[in-house]
Amino acid sequence: MPGDDSTAAADTLPEFIFGPLSTAAGRVRQARLQCTGLRHVVNRVVLAPAPGEAVVIRVQVGPELAVTAVELRYSIDPGLDPAADGSSADRAPAEGVRCLAMTRSRLRWDDLAWGYLEEWTASIPGQPTGTAVSYAITATTSDGDRLGCPFLDQERLRRSVLAPEELDLDALSRRPPEPGPRTYAYVVGRRPIPDWLREAVIYQIFVDRFAPDPGTCFRDPGDLAGFFGGSLRGVIARLDHLQALGVTCLWLTPIFPSPSHHGYDPVDPGAVEPRLGTQADWDALVAAARARGMRLLLDYVVNHVSSEHPRFRAAQADAADPAGAWFRFREHPHDYDCFFDVPGQPELRSDHPEVRAYFLEHARFWLTRGCDGFRLDYAANVSHAFWSLFREGTRATRADAVTLGEITQPPDVMRSYTGRMDGCLDFRLLELLRGFFAHRSLSASAFEHALEQHLSYFGADLVLPSFLDNHDMNRFLWVVGGDRRRLRLAALCQFTLPQPPILYYGTEVGLSQRAGVGRLEEARLPMLWGEDQDADLLAFFQELIAFRHAHPALRSEPRQAWLLDDSRGLLGVRCGAVAVVMNNAEQPATVEFPTAWGGAEPVLLTAPAEPIAAVAGTLTLAPWAGAALRLSPGSPSPPAAGPPVPSVDHPADG
Amino acid sequence: MPGDDSTAAADTLPEFIFGPLSTAAGRVRQARLQCTGLRHVVNRVVLAPAPGEAVVIRVQVGPELAVTAVELRYSIDPGLDPAADGSSADRAPAEGVRCLAMTRSRLRWDDLAWGYLEEWTASIPGQPTGTAVSYAITATTSDGDRLGCPFLDQERLRRSVLAPEELDLDALSRRPPEPGPRTYAYVVGRRPIPDWLREAVIYQIFVDRFAPDPGTCFRDPGDLAGFFGGSLRGVIARLDHLQALGVTCLWLTPIFPSPSHHGYDPVDPGAVEPRLGTQADWDALVAAARARGMRLLLDYVVNHVSSEHPRFRAAQADAADPAGAWFRFREHPHDYDCFFDVPGQPELRSDHPEVRAYFLEHARFWLTRGCDGFRLDYAANVSHAFWSLFREGTRATRADAVTLGEITQPPDVMRSYTGRMDGCLDFRLLELLRGFFAHRSLSASAFEHALEQHLSYFGADLVLPSFLDNHDMNRFLWVVGGDRRRLRLAALCQFTLPQPPILYYGTEVGLSQRAGVGRLEEARLPMLWGEDQDADLLAFFQELIAFRHAHPALRSEPRQAWLLDDSRGLLGVRCGAVAVVMNNAEQPATVEFPTAWGGAEPVLLTAPAEPIAAVAGTLTLAPWAGAALRLSPGSPSPPAAGPPVPSVDHPADG
Repeated sequence: MPGDDSTAAADTLPEFIFGPLSTAAGRVRQARLQCTGLRHVVNRVVLAPAPGEAVVIRVQVGPELAVTAVELRYSIDPGLDPAADGSSADRAPAEGVRCLAMTRSRLRWDDLAWGYLEEWTASIPGQPTGTAVSYAITATTSDGDRLGCPFLDQERLRRSVLAPEELDLDALSRRPPEPGPRTYAYVVGRRPIPDWLREAVIYQIFVDRFAPDPGTCFRDPGDLAGFFGGSLRGVIARLDHLQALGVTCLWLTPIFPSPSHHGYDPVDPGAVEPRLGTQADWDALVAAARARGMRLLLDYVVNHVSSEHPRFRAAQADAADPAGAWFRFREHPHDYDCFFDVPGQPELRSDHPEVRAYFLEHARFWLTRGCDGFRLDYAANVSHAFWSLFREGTRATRADAVTLGEITQPPDVMRSYTGRMDGCLDFRLLELLRGFFAHRSLSASAFEHALEQHLSYFGADLVLPSFLDNHDMNRFLWVVGGDRRRLRLAALCQFTLPQPPILYYGTEVGLSQRAGVGRLEEARLPMLWGEDQDADLLAFFQELIAFRHAHPALRSEPRQAWLLDDSRGLLGVRCGAVAVVMNNAEQPATVEFPTAWGGAEPVLLTAPAEPIAAVAGTLTLAPWAGAALRLSPGSPSPPAAGPPVPSVDHPADG
Repeated sequence: MPGDDSTAAADTLPEFIFGPLSTAAGRVRQARLQCTGLRHVVNRVVLAPAPGEAVVIRVQVGPELAVTAVELRYSIDPGLDPAADGSSADRAPAEGVRCLAMTRSRLRWDDLAWGYLEEWTASIPGQPTGTAVSYAITATTSDGDRLGCPFLDQERLRRSVLAPEELDLDALSRRPPEPGPRTYAYVVGRRPIPDWLREAVIYQIFVDRFAPDPGTCFRDPGDLAGFFGGSLRGVIARLDHLQALGVTCLWLTPIFPSPSHHGYDPVDPGAVEPRLGTQADWDALVAAARARGMRLLLDYVVNHVSSEHPRFRAAQADAADPAGAWFRFREHPHDYDCFFDVPGQPELRSDHPEVRAYFLEHARFWLTRGCDGFRLDYAANVSHAFWSLFREGTRATRADAVTLGEITQPPDVMRSYTGRMDGCLDFRLLELLRGFFAHRSLSASAFEHALEQHLSYFGADLVLPSFLDNHDMNRFLWVVGGDRRRLRLAALCQFTLPQPPILYYGTEVGLSQRAGVGRLEEARLPMLWGEDQDADLLAFFQELIAFRHAHPALRSEPRQAWLLDDSRGLLGVRCGAVAVVMNNAEQPATVEFPTAWGGAEPVLLTAPAEPIAAVAGTLTLAPWAGAALRLSPGSPSPPAAGPPVPSVDHPADG
């Protein structure tokens, strides 16, 4: 547990998972930004209306803007863009676009802004299931300016009395708001989430690093950014390993043509990178996986492409080329918005109808070719509207296809994707798991408290896969100094949580790193095969996954802590007839079970080789060891884990 | 208007009006504090229920506390304290005290706290008019601790992962939370605010500095903290001056026995300080003021007393004296909570039933002796419960008595006194008026925008008297370098606003300072009489106040800007058939009236000696000059000033 001096830099998270929000200064900066300009807080509010349900649209106006009127234009015709002409003064909307006058419905004093925030609202009438409602918002100021939402006038902000120096205006100017209003959208009606996703155990394969063609070895390119020769044929050849492990779903990092080892800068999302294989190889992988009952998720990048993408090359070669509208050139041809300022990865205007159609078309192609859904790369930087329409479009092709967003944002933003995606990778849970089990910056009770709140916060319509690490951070095993006991313990916790777990390739056989991720590639070393594998660890993961499959109560029953011992680092939770106990400390510990249980049998031990003894009513756990227990039939059920919390939309969160 | 370099220290207000909130760092610190511990956010939420209306009580739990249950105990019997026994585990409440189990109704992610804030709620059933409902809240943690609300465990906060170093825990420990839960209270039913207060023009008299006994002169004590000899008899003798000025209500700084020149450390709130006069002098003042139609407000201090107060002397002399319960001794006898750490001003436990009864009894005495109400000193540091019960008690003695709080807090806190006081001195308006007219840190449009929002934010049940300065800050005239033109202009604005204006003694005759308020006493120089008075300025204020009295539309009609010219510093507003135009700049300016007016006649000029010419449809204003105009009968009314904003309670503000 944290010592008295662990709070020295308490406001800085131990890892940079949440980017600028990892520090207190970054959070204050964001809090300030969130009370300036014209903002439709769609990224903090759930807009998932039922059929016929009216949707209240809210716009926040910062104190530096004197707004006299706000207009909402909306359309239910997919061919009509309500943002068209929205910024031209007094231009009538196109036929079929409806106008609503928003009204100032609330004033709220904000200490950080040191002024009033206005909320303007209008209500879009209810629509039938499947209707895609698009809308755009324009405000008129007392100066007569018309401002498209979102709006953040840096000069105005700079001039205002309250412009805080922390705002870091230079960083803001990296991507100035688009001129004119943005088009927002949502789709009406609930889309049930396929059961297979809720029940899945997902395995992340970094394709270039997982398995080379059968009969060959990994190449050694001499650089971790080089090509090691993993391929789709290699994956097919290793499906036995994966089946024996027990995973039910494979997530492949991008397989599309790309100049990089990771593929996150695709040149053509409709083809297979020749290094990795062929379309026929993909089809063979689908067939082989299907035969084993496994699903396949493709990693899909919409935020940006490779600078070798033909549309970018056309746009760069000729400023007049229509492809120029796909990108954001600040100065043609060499200055344009890029993913993290990497010139090789130009960002797309993903709300452009052609861009949206392009990515939807290719996604549908893969769904018809056996793909079961998509992990959506850097998804928070693409609009909510895009993802609503993307899910609707992909579901139309395959009713059980899924979308999982990589949303490296706090939980309120994650939750805003309810009704827009099927799930988000749970980075907050990652932070908690690593905080308790790896960094030990959280006590058992702090971990369990934060976890209980987190699990209560989301509705059932958003799946939140868990993970201990991925290709963008230090592997868990590396963080704990290679101590497999601690990896097993954390995995026991992860795999007994309700949400579907993700296993990063190699974790199950002891793959670690040579150094910390000064370069992310350190977390992408080639998979271990044969004698290099830790057979004991692999057997443990096989057992753990089998245990999860055998106990659906882990997903469905209320979960409650029965043991919180911060001084000894002990945590015990119960879920139906299953209990888990974890000794997150370097001393052994003897645990007494609640007498009400009437008995408990250890059925899964993280440390079988250690001296663990189960006497009647007690269990002695080795350092860093944990166990899953089966309770006697008829032992009384625990009460529900904490009072229920409504999972409804809380607009005031915005 | 602000120049490009005016934002260098933009986050720091030009004056320290709001204490620690005057800087960005202080606001961040407060924002952090507001998401920790156990908080009933009564100081940001309006609790003014109608008869029979249920009241939802909300408690916020910070992420560092794992709370498993929260209990609300309430009573409608004034003799029963629901906080009694509240912190003893499992103690049954006294008969007549009811218990409600609060439920966790909401989780909200907070970026600054980097965790979830829980909201627990319970609903107290509706009660008849006049019922005083008292309540207390106790939470149980997963450790089994029972925490009285409010709760802020500094050690726990220090240990938590997220304890921000900016929290300034040392400053917090100056006043640790009381052990056990606090008793909160509200009174059911609306108490109409007397019309006389809404219509008043208030004059603040610093008694020692206003007028000595008739026939005598001010003494010169050689020190501004000494006694200058002002007295109640002096005030009586100068009522003619005040009547000619046109003020309708006198606010006297404390007249009670006290060792200081200001009286804000009373020894006996039931008597008159002999230096200032006798009870008979007070009675004579009441009679003389009444004869002139003037009301009298006394300045009442509840937060603290003088260390010479007999109860404090008793408590200090004997640790076992029952009077010890009135104070907060940290270590008897010399270490105790004081107003701003001044040992001569020990703070009271104002929620102690004896203390409450003591101050209510003396207040009622003064109401029976002709006092019309109270200005409540440092009122934000005394509980909301106290003020609810104080108003109810004083109203029972005189139905048209009023209470006006000195609330040096942001508007959301001011608004929380709705239903508890009749009004608050408007420090936010003070900031805006000084920002535009004195510091010129606000442009005309920024000033008008902030003002419009501010006026829209409050309901009709809270009166917000305006002022340009008071005894605790630099006089306005001093801030503008003695330029009477600028004082007149600001006063024109102040006296044409809807809320009742307060005039600080001497402002009307040019009283200023010798130096800035390194010592507050600089703003308390003796009043100017006779030849020392600026007769022109006095005549202007007489005219201005008469104009206000003659135009009740200023209080009742919608107010709207018709001229906002930031480049010239021009502001024009209209209110019914009255318009005001102000040239807040050092250049003359010619203003064109809207043609729709059909004509406008200047009826009040701030600068009669300057070359102001009203030609048809235009007016030329001298530098720093303003005018009130009467519009032609039948000129079309302006639309309401901005959309209406509901003045209802917004719990999410808390």
